[in-house]
Amino acid sequence: MKIKPLAAALAALGVGVCFGVQAAPDELREKAKVIIQPIEPAKIDHPAKVDLGRQLFFEPRLSMSGIISCNTCHNLSLGGVDNLKTSIGHKWQPGPVNAPTVFNASLNFVQFWDGRAANLQEQAAGPIQNPIEMGMPHTLAVAVLQSIPGYVDEFKKIYGTDQIAIEQVTDAIAEFEKTLVTPNSRFDKWLKGDDKAITAEEREGFRIFYDSGCIACHNGPNLGGNSFQKIGVVEPYKSTSPAEGRAAVTKKDEDRWYFKVPTLRNVELTYPYFHDGQAKTLEEAVTLMGRLQLGRTFTDDEVKKVVAFLHTLTGERPQMPLPLLPPSGPNTPRPDPFK
Amino acid sequence: MKIKPLAAALAALGVGVCFGVQAAPDELREKAKVIIQPIEPAKIDHPAKVDLGRQLFFEPRLSMSGIISCNTCHNLSLGGVDNLKTSIGHKWQPGPVNAPTVFNASLNFVQFWDGRAANLQEQAAGPIQNPIEMGMPHTLAVAVLQSIPGYVDEFKKIYGTDQIAIEQVTDAIAEFEKTLVTPNSRFDKWLKGDDKAITAEEREGFRIFYDSGCIACHNGPNLGGNSFQKIGVVEPYKSTSPAEGRAAVTKKDEDRWYFKVPTLRNVELTYPYFHDGQAKTLEEAVTLMGRLQLGRTFTDDEVKKVVAFLHTLTGERPQMPLPLLPPSGPNTPRPDPFK
Repeated sequence: MKIKPLAAALAALGVGVCFGVQAAPDELREKAKVIIQPIEPAKIDHPAKVDLGRQLFFEPRLSMSGIISCNTCHNLSLGGVDNLKTSIGHKWQPGPVNAPTVFNASLNFVQFWDGRAANLQEQAAGPIQNPIEMGMPHTLAVAVLQSIPGYVDEFKKIYGTDQIAIEQVTDAIAEFEKTLVTPNSRFDKWLKGDDKAITAEEREGFRIFYDSGCIACHNGPNLGGNSFQKIGVVEPYKSTSPAEGRAAVTKKDEDRWYFKVPTLRNVELTYPYFHDGQAKTLEEAVTLMGRLQLGRTFTDDEVKKVVAFLHTLTGERPQMPLPLLPPSGPNTPRPDPFK
Repeated sequence: MKIKPLAAALAALGVGVCFGVQAAPDELREKAKVIIQPIEPAKIDHPAKVDLGRQLFFEPRLSMSGIISCNTCHNLSLGGVDNLKTSIGHKWQPGPVNAPTVFNASLNFVQFWDGRAANLQEQAAGPIQNPIEMGMPHTLAVAVLQSIPGYVDEFKKIYGTDQIAIEQVTDAIAEFEKTLVTPNSRFDKWLKGDDKAITAEEREGFRIFYDSGCIACHNGPNLGGNSFQKIGVVEPYKSTSPAEGRAAVTKKDEDRWYFKVPTLRNVELTYPYFHDGQAKTLEEAVTLMGRLQLGRTFTDDEVKKVVAFLHTLTGERPQMPLPLLPPSGPNTPRPDPFK
């Protein structure tokens, strides 16, 4: 593509020229851009699959009780979470860990706190059949969908077969979840060059975050979600949670207390914090992380500024229509939640 | 408004003239029109109130556990119901009756199976504080909302005060629920003159429904919802449900087993049926109603036709955006569902 000389010259000089001033380059931003990438809007390759996945995400008939859907614990009206310490599952059983947000989960290198799923599709299969979550054997989940004429039609259009399979169900859910990104946070706007997108206090909070070493684990587009790290590096983390992290997968003792670093995107919305949901507020979380991970006692003023920065990571939550689900057929197995 | 003579003449003669034939008037339809009115689209007088009401309808923080919202049992992705025999409430407690649909509920003469609420606003107050439903004292529900800055702003814009009151909460929910109507069912299209909107079998099903006397209770715009009637008129209704109906309100023995007649609108979506959710299918429900209420044994063919007619009562479910809820503030009381 050819660019006309005048336009090219203006573009090269940047916006500053238009106002007759050249903004001083922000060194902190230049350092940030090396290690944090803005969230990009979702690209939708398969709109029909996304629509089907949205229905399945809201589908309570994928649970043994008939009332729990993916959206129960990963509530898209909230922060893609349930804002509980640990979730409530089938027959009111408590989950072992805090529900991680589904927003931007596609940007995580693995799924679950202990990374036991390689990707969103693998992840989606888990809670459906977990006895303390949705409690629904995959065979029964598929039988339910197969008995609902509206779903049979939709699956056939997308997957070309009359036989619904659990891999299709999780594929559609994963495809929908890939659209659950939250672009245009104030931080991302600042990262892209808008000096006014964040305040001086918020920028200072990010500087503290960067200089103290928080950035060592919370980096990449998701400010986290791209490594396992031990909780309690300098000082042991005290928890009543039975979760041991990565060791549950690798069976290696040295992997105890290693968890996937959680994203800080939309962290304002995803309280309470840590794998056990023990930290109720961002202030608590920042204070504790400083001490346990970095051996550093943040002052109240530093905590306040870091928390102010964290609030700039709230992006635009995905807007979507409430899905309308097809009615059960005459032979659809009916849930009996009290049996 | 003046109408030009030619246009007026054509309008008076009707569509039949345009095709050179005059359709024979449908006597059954003329009788139906006297006693059943089509569902009209919602008129929205206060869009901001409807938006707020939609948020509150999906708001799990109105429950003690933090995961039950109005939408849990009156699921707008389904038929405005949970499709369970009886609902699951706080700590997995079973409800005493089948959750009635919220679709077209504004057209009912009173609310709840036993009519203990005069209108939608009164109704909305009930489940929030019912210990076996959402389990949330009104004072705490209001305190939660009052601690959420986003809600304080919205309530102030609509109700003109900084002090949120439970009456405002239920008013907004009721205003939203008034929009949950389902116009343009095939039956309504037929009622309005479209002969092809229903099949001959479906029309015959309606004739049986009309001539057998089902229409005596299931009439009005909601085909029900406008009177209390005894379940088991000719033959007693057998149920393990403790619900005694209207007598719970009036304390009069003669009101035992009197329930509000349920709407038949969208009955395809609102299974299972009756106040105790005992009838799993429309076939069962029609057969039993014929016997218990009318002393009539419908043949299989009659049942099939009546059920075919009932399917024509499915209207257009309301399309809406999934509401995005404001985050809790630093002092928002946090739910503890396992206490």
